[in-house]
Amino acid sequence: MTTAPNNNKVVLVVGAGDATGSAIAKRFAAQGFTACVTRRSADKLQPLVEAIRQTGGQAHGFACDARKEEDVVALIEQIETQIGPIEAFIFNIGANVPCSILEETARKYFKIWEMACFSGFLNAREVAKRMVTRQRGTILFTGATAGVRGAAGFAAFAGAKHGIRALAQSMARELGPLNIHVGHIIVDGAIDTDFIRTSFPEKYALKDQDGILNPEHIAENYWYLHSQPRDAWTFELDLRPWNERW
Amino acid sequence: MTTAPNNNKVVLVVGAGDATGSAIAKRFAAQGFTACVTRRSADKLQPLVEAIRQTGGQAHGFACDARKEEDVVALIEQIETQIGPIEAFIFNIGANVPCSILEETARKYFKIWEMACFSGFLNAREVAKRMVTRQRGTILFTGATAGVRGAAGFAAFAGAKHGIRALAQSMARELGPLNIHVGHIIVDGAIDTDFIRTSFPEKYALKDQDGILNPEHIAENYWYLHSQPRDAWTFELDLRPWNERW
Amino acid sequence: MTTAPNNNKVVLVVGAGDATGSAIAKRFAAQGFTACVTRRSADKLQPLVEAIRQTGGQAHGFACDARKEEDVVALIEQIETQIGPIEAFIFNIGANVPCSILEETARKYFKIWEMACFSGFLNAREVAKRMVTRQRGTILFTGATAGVRGAAGFAAFAGAKHGIRALAQSMARELGPLNIHVGHIIVDGAIDTDFIRTSFPEKYALKDQDGILNPEHIAENYWYLHSQPRDAWTFELDLRPWNERW
Amino acid sequence: MTTAPNNNKVVLVVGAGDATGSAIAKRFAAQGFTACVTRRSADKLQPLVEAIRQTGGQAHGFACDARKEEDVVALIEQIETQIGPIEAFIFNIGANVPCSILEETARKYFKIWEMACFSGFLNAREVAKRMVTRQRGTILFTGATAGVRGAAGFAAFAGAKHGIRALAQSMARELGPLNIHVGHIIVDGAIDTDFIRTSFPEKYALKDQDGILNPEHIAENYWYLHSQPRDAWTFELDLRPWNERW
Repeated sequence: MTTAPNNNKVVLVVGAGDATGSAIAKRFAAQGFTACVTRRSADKLQPLVEAIRQTGGQAHGFACDARKEEDVVALIEQIETQIGPIEAFIFNIGANVPCSILEETARKYFKIWEMACFSGFLNAREVAKRMVTRQRGTILFTGATAGVRGAAGFAAFAGAKHGIRALAQSMARELGPLNIHVGHIIVDGAIDTDFIRTSFPEKYALKDQDGILNPEHIAENYWYLHSQPRDAWTFELDLRPWNERW
Repeated sequence: MTTAPNNNKVVLVVGAGDATGSAIAKRFAAQGFTACVTRRSADKLQPLVEAIRQTGGQAHGFACDARKEEDVVALIEQIETQIGPIEAFIFNIGANVPCSILEETARKYFKIWEMACFSGFLNAREVAKRMVTRQRGTILFTGATAGVRGAAGFAAFAGAKHGIRALAQSMARELGPLNIHVGHIIVDGAIDTDFIRTSFPEKYALKDQDGILNPEHIAENYWYLHSQPRDAWTFELDLRPWNERW
Repeated sequence: MTTAPNNNKVVLVVGAGDATGSAIAKRFAAQGFTACVTRRSADKLQPLVEAIRQTGGQAHGFACDARKEEDVVALIEQIETQIGPIEAFIFNIGANVPCSILEETARKYFKIWEMACFSGFLNAREVAKRMVTRQRGTILFTGATAGVRGAAGFAAFAGAKHGIRALAQSMARELGPLNIHVGHIIVDGAIDTDFIRTSFPEKYALKDQDGILNPEHIAENYWYLHSQPRDAWTFELDLRPWNERW
Repeated sequence: MTTAPNNNKVVLVVGAGDATGSAIAKRFAAQGFTACVTRRSADKLQPLVEAIRQTGGQAHGFACDARKEEDVVALIEQIETQIGPIEAFIFNIGANVPCSILEETARKYFKIWEMACFSGFLNAREVAKRMVTRQRGTILFTGATAGVRGAAGFAAFAGAKHGIRALAQSMARELGPLNIHVGHIIVDGAIDTDFIRTSFPEKYALKDQDGILNPEHIAENYWYLHSQPRDAWTFELDLRPWNERW
């Protein structure tokens, strides 16, 4: 590991999808962070990178399979040496695919965990190794209600989200005293995404009354946690629309 | 109940002690809220009221025994009719008095609950009645780790804090769909107070390294929750120093 | 406190109602315990006392207002000196009275807590004082889902049940190392009682398919916890019908 | 899937190690169950199989890599067709290997999950498929405190154990209404094993005062859960020595 060539503060968003991940990247970029964003396909990142640049921000898109250790190790080394120190890391890959336990395939159960939990471990570990040498940094995980409750038909997703919460808690307890702020945001409710609009139109109709989560408003909480002074750090907060049943 | 004479937005802080409660009142006052603050003794409120006024803010101090229903009902009626609508209500009375269960007196067990839980119910109910007629408002409770864990020697305090968390959860689930934002802040760690300075000097010495909570930083979170747009409300967050064991 | 006149092992059941409390008393009596059972009215205890005696067991009924410290202190002194050492104590007073927070009266909120939480503290403390001198004993509390979750319309009941769980946890952590086994049983679902039969006939109809809890089956779990060897004690278990949603 | 050739009730214990798993197999065998026990190596199972047979019980040992889907599918088909219907399934594979998050390897993080969580999914799914056709059965998972709390240095183990608890909860909610009893036992404390005796002699010395868990006493709780009538099923209970700190 070599040191960063400059003092650019980097936010790394792994899982920079069209909604939450993008909003988080933009939010940090607006504060002067260089946004490094990853998805499996670089093409899909282009609009985000351009959007950030058009508002005067700095952004770099990386195609990266977050489940492949060598890729993750290489990417983080590349960012740290060529762009700047990763001061904030956001893990935002989800994989909410419900299924009866009776019909769940081994392949899918594994893929959901690999995507939504294992890749979180890989990326967070690599980033944490750098942060501890600097004795500062923020690591935030996007969680879900499935991370605290295993509902019928959600064994795989709940398993992955419970796993990511366990990772977050373990890291918070180990790395907090090393001045690394680790947090876990429980998003409880439908988010304003293309997926919800096309697949759950009735749910999406609640948007008129603020009944689904605005990605920008979610993103604000990530920035907020990053900004907290270290005498009063939050490990976990939940987010849900006012009229959501829970 | 009559309507408020003007459009002054009021924050009511019940339990406006020297540290957290005062900081919350100041934080809301700085945003243009009229701070109505209560303690059992009016004298002790005077410095807070003056401090807010000196910075151009509006503040009123009220001696009120928060455990007495008539007093609470009268006070809230007075504020609503003479000062303005209570847009934000903060319940901040604590009572952390450890004791072996074998020696806990009925009187003390009751007093701790009456102070730290029952008065929260009384005040929050009265405020909620007004807020639902306006279909808006924020109700925030100061919680503690004892609200989620009953430690040895803390049966009374844990009972009260579990009770206030149950109240907060019940209210959040009932009043959320009425557009009232109810939240619960778990403060986990020593706060920078006279009490800690004089009673736990070793703990207080951690202040140099940000090892105890700064009341202003705690207060910021109350303001933050109040400011959240309603599509992404937080019910609960925890706050602790970076080097706190948990 | 004087010592017990004989070696009769006593189970004290506070809140020996017609269903669960009675079943627990019978279960322990069947194992040779002298059942001391309390309710506010002695009349209602007579059938239970007679039922135990007719099966060859020993039982004593006591009218006792479990919320009055002097009464509780006197009763436990009386049992310990005149009947035998309390080896098992069961607190089984409930008070499930739902209400909107907006209409909850201070009187009812207080009464529910006083009955379902404060009296638990009073009785458990008095019993614990005796048990620690003998360095053995079992203290079990009847809990509810409301003890871990505050539902809309259940602020008072949830507050009391959260409080009793906090008490149980605090006592378990303090008294476990003194060889006192403290436990908390979460009963989640309708019980086969007159109340359910008359007030919720549709619920009661589920009895045919084992959809409501049989008090004898609940009671078995209290006996089971009491019987556990001390290297493997349970603090908490839940109980619900197979077809209950949760 | 063909039907079982006889009415032998089978208990399948996956992870029949020398301590807890063996004790569970013996406990069910003593009640007339045919114990089918698996480990990776058949040799190590021989003493257990013989011990059960010598007491007049029926037992079969199977070498099975519980992480390999084909092996699991084949084994359960074999048991169901050649031995009898699996009425109780116990998943008891652990993998408590602590490590700093900074040094945790991808390989080990994966292996711990694969062993302690993924194999639980594979086996439980295969068994559940059979049980739902018969509309009866018991599925029990051995949990740990790491399943509800992520401690520093335990990210991998906590992740696996959180995952298994999520699986258990999801299955309980989906399969309970199909008359399948799913449960999760949280073992909190050192167990009387060779591992503890040789690696933690100071801990093991607590055995004299019942300070470590006796595998037979743990096993009793699995039998107890299996025996519960379906109107009062337990999903979760914890087990710890009387003097354990928690």
